[in-house]
Amino acid sequence: MASIYLLCFAAVFHAAHAIWPIPIDISTGNDALALSGDFTISVDSPAPSDLLDAVNRTIEFVQNDKLEALIVGRGASYAERLQTAPLLSSLVLSFGSGHDGVVKSISEEAMADIDARVEGYTLTIPNDGSQATLTANSSLGLFRGLTTFGQLWYYLNGTTYTVEAPISIADSPIYPYRGLMLDTSRNYFPVADILRTLDVMSWVHMTTFHWHMVDSQSFPVEVPEFPDLSAKGAYGPSMIYSTEDVQNIVSYAAARGIDVLPEIDTPGHTTSIGEAFPEHVACALATPWANYANEPPAGQLRLANSNTTDFTASLFSAVSARFPGKYFSTGGDELNTECYTIDKATQADLKASGKTLEQALDTFVQATHGALKNNGKTPVVWEGISSLKESDTSILTVRLAEMVLNFNLTLSNETIVMVWISSADASAVAEKGFRLVHAPSDYMYLDCGAGEWIGDTPDATSWCDPFKSWQHTYTFDPTANMTDAQAKFVIGGEQLLWTEQSGPSNLDSIVWPRAGASAELFWSGPGRNISSALPRLHDIAFRMTQRGIGAIPLQPLWCALRPGVCDLTA
Amino acid sequence: MASIYLLCFAAVFHAAHAIWPIPIDISTGNDALALSGDFTISVDSPAPSDLLDAVNRTIEFVQNDKLEALIVGRGASYAERLQTAPLLSSLVLSFGSGHDGVVKSISEEAMADIDARVEGYTLTIPNDGSQATLTANSSLGLFRGLTTFGQLWYYLNGTTYTVEAPISIADSPIYPYRGLMLDTSRNYFPVADILRTLDVMSWVHMTTFHWHMVDSQSFPVEVPEFPDLSAKGAYGPSMIYSTEDVQNIVSYAAARGIDVLPEIDTPGHTTSIGEAFPEHVACALATPWANYANEPPAGQLRLANSNTTDFTASLFSAVSARFPGKYFSTGGDELNTECYTIDKATQADLKASGKTLEQALDTFVQATHGALKNNGKTPVVWEGISSLKESDTSILTVRLAEMVLNFNLTLSNETIVMVWISSADASAVAEKGFRLVHAPSDYMYLDCGAGEWIGDTPDATSWCDPFKSWQHTYTFDPTANMTDAQAKFVIGGEQLLWTEQSGPSNLDSIVWPRAGASAELFWSGPGRNISSALPRLHDIAFRMTQRGIGAIPLQPLWCALRPGVCDLTA
Repeated sequence: MASIYLLCFAAVFHAAHAIWPIPIDISTGNDALALSGDFTISVDSPAPSDLLDAVNRTIEFVQNDKLEALIVGRGASYAERLQTAPLLSSLVLSFGSGHDGVVKSISEEAMADIDARVEGYTLTIPNDGSQATLTANSSLGLFRGLTTFGQLWYYLNGTTYTVEAPISIADSPIYPYRGLMLDTSRNYFPVADILRTLDVMSWVHMTTFHWHMVDSQSFPVEVPEFPDLSAKGAYGPSMIYSTEDVQNIVSYAAARGIDVLPEIDTPGHTTSIGEAFPEHVACALATPWANYANEPPAGQLRLANSNTTDFTASLFSAVSARFPGKYFSTGGDELNTECYTIDKATQADLKASGKTLEQALDTFVQATHGALKNNGKTPVVWEGISSLKESDTSILTVRLAEMVLNFNLTLSNETIVMVWISSADASAVAEKGFRLVHAPSDYMYLDCGAGEWIGDTPDATSWCDPFKSWQHTYTFDPTANMTDAQAKFVIGGEQLLWTEQSGPSNLDSIVWPRAGASAELFWSGPGRNISSALPRLHDIAFRMTQRGIGAIPLQPLWCALRPGVCDLTA
Repeated sequence: MASIYLLCFAAVFHAAHAIWPIPIDISTGNDALALSGDFTISVDSPAPSDLLDAVNRTIEFVQNDKLEALIVGRGASYAERLQTAPLLSSLVLSFGSGHDGVVKSISEEAMADIDARVEGYTLTIPNDGSQATLTANSSLGLFRGLTTFGQLWYYLNGTTYTVEAPISIADSPIYPYRGLMLDTSRNYFPVADILRTLDVMSWVHMTTFHWHMVDSQSFPVEVPEFPDLSAKGAYGPSMIYSTEDVQNIVSYAAARGIDVLPEIDTPGHTTSIGEAFPEHVACALATPWANYANEPPAGQLRLANSNTTDFTASLFSAVSARFPGKYFSTGGDELNTECYTIDKATQADLKASGKTLEQALDTFVQATHGALKNNGKTPVVWEGISSLKESDTSILTVRLAEMVLNFNLTLSNETIVMVWISSADASAVAEKGFRLVHAPSDYMYLDCGAGEWIGDTPDATSWCDPFKSWQHTYTFDPTANMTDAQAKFVIGGEQLLWTEQSGPSNLDSIVWPRAGASAELFWSGPGRNISSALPRLHDIAFRMTQRGIGAIPLQPLWCALRPGVCDLTA
């Protein structure tokens, strides 16, 4: 019985294709094909240098991955077939008929307007060893295709092979924004950790590294115009991203098809700014902190003060000028109104101007967003607490509020809104006419479920318990409870790592392969079957491991080698 | 306000002592003391080589840890005091007046009867630079003292110092068993990962590495008498612990004061044995697996068969002979009776012998435990499901049952029982007169809270959700709901890592510093304050990081530098 059983599952495995994210359209055969010892990849026209670099990385991957098939015997049963398998000696990249003739770099295309990015490609691999072809209408599309090509191959006794030739793929993403957010303020991550993360993001076709650079805990980014921000606000001199580091991160990302979305969270979450500029921060370190912030330390920009507004606008100008991308996040989450109530300076500013706090906030947002627009940037902000009761939304009684849903701000409709508090808020944001990115804590937060980190709480769980498993994220519906009109405002989604309990030692293990869930959801589209996805997710996890990433096992290896057998109903 | 605030917390920090586990009796002063450049540690009598090795490791740690104090400024405020601090040039180790004059190695003492181990020590460090002394009545006690000594020092600009001299410590553990369990069957861990884990265990005075070597998923341990067990049952030839590996692990552990408790789980959890010996395994790979096991794959030893019983006894003899410690776990958890009901061979065996399944189990246990006793080993077993309803405990209706509480077995009272299902079961086990180790899933399981790993379960949480935070474990009461008579049977406890979702990439980050919680609980005793423990746990976590361990941050660094400030009520 056992042997019949295994054969059955081997067959299922063939049908699964070990590609992540799964292409929109793929057909495969059952023939063995091996890579020739002198296998090469070439571009049939002038190519940008970052595309040629990607070609070289792809050759290195197919040579060095040496990933054995995730089936019982690790592919040994293919040995005989591989002895007579045709050899593939070349893959040729071409721009397609839809290309406009102006060759741009991957980097340039990755940082274009989000609606203007062209990521589709077609990949054809014959079963007879004749030339494979990859065609796209952009360098970025060719890069996505190279990435897919690099996932097709297994290794057995010196042979790099597939048993699914011929392979034909026509692919392009459903949503243009597919991101990962990393918080580098709660705990610091060396540049090498970020670069490694960008590599893995590119392997699953992600488009955006949302870099939550600073927060109340530390200000680790050098801003030459305001050197004291990091000199006094970082955790230490070895925990600062220099301007050179930032440039390195941005260019490394871009060459891998990834746009960096920088964030300077304001007006809340800014205690660390007060280390250098105490005059701009209200209720810094106020106690009990729980009255003035969602987590310690309390501290918010004095948004009613014109000097603070000017400072913030200048800060946004200075930082955004160093990021070539089009988008810049100004934060805007968890505004604590009680902090401003007890801050005498803010109360004096409001009295002098005759404005309500809401009006002052509007002025602050117009001025600071205006500075971004002057630099050609589109603002991105966090959403609001739509779940607050109507009677609680008064400015005087809401302790924690969000800019988009709780305040009557005159935000430009080109603003992009990150829905984070709850997936249930998305339709209200769309209804207001904002493009939105799904980043809800109930589906996308990678840090949930690790216990409470606030001290002196013996039995508390994390605020967003339970852990968001890959399966849970994968089954998210981006247009749930939306009208067709609302659904048009969804541009994608991201998984997020807030780092109260994370550092370099658990970055890979918390993120990978789990963040692959949203990468596939927003590339390949929702509604896919988790049971057929799991073998492919195992596969990309093991491939990540072969490439030096600390991805974790999702199941015992026994299960990974037997697709479907460890399903609940198997 | 902020500066007063910080001074206040710096004072709190001094009182906390950066030692884990906290000594039973410690007094410290407020004087600065630095290590001399030629600081040495010596033993004033003939010393075993493993003690001299430990001396050398301690010197390396105090030289290389270079841990900066976890306070704002990282100790820079001490710079002036350190310039005139007395220099400590030597620590001398001596056997105390209670020593019997027979010098034994750490290794020998670590593997002695659990009640016979002597771990206490006294450590005195004057504040004037005169000789520090460490005294104990055993090599093992001297080793514990060396470990504590290695945690006393911070680093600033080339100086290794304390600001708490004089220091006087008199220490010994409350409970003798303080363990960590690792499952190497669900996923495999290279020997280097185990050795690294043993190092860290020794830094928090742990006594026992409970090695759950094999299970249904794989059999990664070479048994020379039965070479096919690993040849066919391991995940692959590179995922087998050779006999040499086992010896290396055992001796590495022993030299660090750690006894290895090996486990061959039987009669359940044995599918992997069926790869080599299918005749001994009932319902191997039976489907649906959920009818026959708590997780896939199903498969249990044919306990009613005399050949299988003889085989198991021989296996225990062969494996236990290679472990010099006194204790050996035979498992015994999650026995599935339905499996035996459908297994025709078992039904035939029962019919032939005229025994009930319970009687057959008793015979099996007597024979297999007898083989251990012939090798001088004390058996250790898992506990039982006391939470089953009375009406469900019949042998015919209980699908999953445990040997100690559900069956009327004639287990020797020297048997040690691991309480795992629930902390509520401990008193019932003690009432039966068994020594017990606390290993309850509701407090001690390190793998809980990471989402369900069984396939095709989109929204399931892990079976033992939520995550067991260090705080939760730390507040465990080892004698809750016990009479004084019952409490005497508690010999300690352990935290456990089942590895369905773990591998080398997340071993350190799942275990450390969290497993320090039980290490301190069972060394220093229960009922301690989590708020004062947290700064010390931060400290040992950062020290682990300095020593190359992937321990995780428990909080933002901002909080770690400001003890108490991130408490809920701060």
